[in-house]
Amino acid sequence: MRTIKLTIAYDGTHYAGWQFQPDRPTVQGAIEAALEQIVGQRARVAGSGRTDAGVHALGQVASFDTTTRLAADVLRRALNARLPHDIAVLTAADAPPGFHATADAIRKRYRYMIHDGPIRDVFGRRYCWHVYQRLDAERMHRAAQACMGTHDFASFENRGSPRENSVRTIFDVAVYRDGDETNRVAIEVEADGFLYNMVRNIVGTLVEVGRHARSEEWVGEGLAACDRSATGPTAPPEGLVLLRVKYDLPDRRNAASGDTAP
Amino acid sequence: MRTIKLTIAYDGTHYAGWQFQPDRPTVQGAIEAALEQIVGQRARVAGSGRTDAGVHALGQVASFDTTTRLAADVLRRALNARLPHDIAVLTAADAPPGFHATADAIRKRYRYMIHDGPIRDVFGRRYCWHVYQRLDAERMHRAAQACMGTHDFASFENRGSPRENSVRTIFDVAVYRDGDETNRVAIEVEADGFLYNMVRNIVGTLVEVGRHARSEEWVGEGLAACDRSATGPTAPPEGLVLLRVKYDLPDRRNAASGDTAP
Repeated sequence: MRTIKLTIAYDGTHYAGWQFQPDRPTVQGAIEAALEQIVGQRARVAGSGRTDAGVHALGQVASFDTTTRLAADVLRRALNARLPHDIAVLTAADAPPGFHATADAIRKRYRYMIHDGPIRDVFGRRYCWHVYQRLDAERMHRAAQACMGTHDFASFENRGSPRENSVRTIFDVAVYRDGDETNRVAIEVEADGFLYNMVRNIVGTLVEVGRHARSEEWVGEGLAACDRSATGPTAPPEGLVLLRVKYDLPDRRNAASGDTAP
Repeated sequence: MRTIKLTIAYDGTHYAGWQFQPDRPTVQGAIEAALEQIVGQRARVAGSGRTDAGVHALGQVASFDTTTRLAADVLRRALNARLPHDIAVLTAADAPPGFHATADAIRKRYRYMIHDGPIRDVFGRRYCWHVYQRLDAERMHRAAQACMGTHDFASFENRGSPRENSVRTIFDVAVYRDGDETNRVAIEVEADGFLYNMVRNIVGTLVEVGRHARSEEWVGEGLAACDRSATGPTAPPEGLVLLRVKYDLPDRRNAASGDTAP
């Protein structure tokens, strides 16, 4: 039995999210179906975590166990030949036995993209949240720093997917305009884990600050309240991309190197 | 009666092209329907030219005559509120009486985008032609220069839309990689007019040169042959974007200024 590790990009527009559902198109379901065609057996493909309906990925990581003797890169090409065009396997490699993309993930990095021009961007509409008012990205960046470090992020967790506890550590949060003259504002967040809708709730809160509807201090105050009603609305899914997932496997580091996607 | 000039961006993926067809979704049909809702009368909206099914625009220009007293910018916003999300009116302005977006166009500039990486780009697939083999963009650029100037471009015209003559003038043709490390090759062509599928046939021919299947001289030889079978295949529509249309109206220059789109 071997363990294969995949990095995967997908346009989530037409999927009901990563996680398999029997009656709806999901990314996990599509990959498992393609794999079954290749190796002749259904196997569970474990992702680093769920992404919601409409959310995208540039570097989702998944793993599965298989007895196939196909070389990892042959598997990659065979998967891509069978997957729909909005899913692509970027890399496939043998991982140490027992590697598990969900259990072994130690950090994830997301990017959220906002288009803040007065006229909609017909080419970016699937990948950006369109906010009509120009945002103050520097103000958003300053306000966002209140989220750095280890906190109870209950104020940024939506109901529907209860976790044992809501303490997480944010290692990096940055808000920047993607070129001075553009109408694109990017928000990147890296953490050891994310609660349900956590990035989208942070983004919805920061946008209130960016359009000067709220003070910079409001973000930190909302976080401290541990109350979802103390922070801003949930930003829509289309702006969100899972950029990469980090793994740290000290006793099997060599085999698991190269665990980030472009 | 006033004449209004529009610049329009659209994602052509889901349209049967610019030109109105009674039973199919077209960009012209969508704009005319939105306009009718606003001004209460159906009017013909003339484009600078047709774009084919699946072809996009960043700066299509269109004009129409109307008796409405709405300010041009109010019209723009009203149109955007009623148009589907893959069409956007970027600018609307009063034009000199008699201005006609088709008849008065003197130059058009198109860009064709190719993705030449080994793995498909799930986010660019609607806007790029995916060629699996790495292309030699510099070789394509040198070969393309044979198209500069005034020629009979019959070798690059597909049947289906006969013109009185097939002599056109290309003012600029450039092939460049969009960033050295990327897998994006762009081809831009500016001319006083284009024959049916002319840009896509030039691109299909240049790709043969870019993958070293043909010599650099083959482009000029194919052009000189005045025979469609002497040049390469037609590139698919999704890579093509109408970037901008130029107008030169010496006796009414002031009112018609600003005729290019971003």
